[in-house]
Amino acid sequence: MSDHTKRKITVDIYGQQYTIVGSESSSHIRIVASMVDDKMREINAMNPRLDISKVAVLTAVNVMHEYLKVKDELEQLKMVIQREKD
Amino acid sequence: MSDHTKRKITVDIYGQQYTIVGSESSSHIRIVASMVDDKMREINAMNPRLDISKVAVLTAVNVMHEYLKVKDELEQLKMVIQREKD
Repeated sequence: MSDHTKRKITVDIYGQQYTIVGSESSSHIRIVASMVDDKMREINAMNPRLDISKVAVLTAVNVMHEYLKVKDELEQLKMVIQREKD
Repeated sequence: MSDHTKRKITVDIYGQQYTIVGSESSSHIRIVASMVDDKMREINAMNPRLDISKVAVLTAVNVMHEYLKVKDELEQLKMVIQREKD
């Protein structure tokens, strides 16, 4: 597959710079980065003694949990739609 | 709201222990932790020189991106269903 749509953008998350490579728009990547930054600051506010790597891991855990919830809701809804079609 | 359903469980992610507090079942928390661990190892394999905090932040970015995609799909589907009802 061609990589012609790949973009490389630099974002700032929790005071550090990251280069993100992907096919998404720069604005989408910036939104994702800013949501991660917000979530890290939220987790840090609740646990001020955690170091950056623990804040980041707990952020990933938190987002993974939200992801599974939404994915589950989507699958349930698809099943309901399928049942109505049958 | 009562906190009587809150659970405290310790999980191992990327060689470090984390205490997760939540109302979810232990098995759900373990699945989430193991998915974060897998994703961190995947990102580390692609960028072996990154330190743990960068691996964790990039994992959070990655999962946040997946979360937004699924959330978007769910919202689109809900809109289609609503339109069919109207």
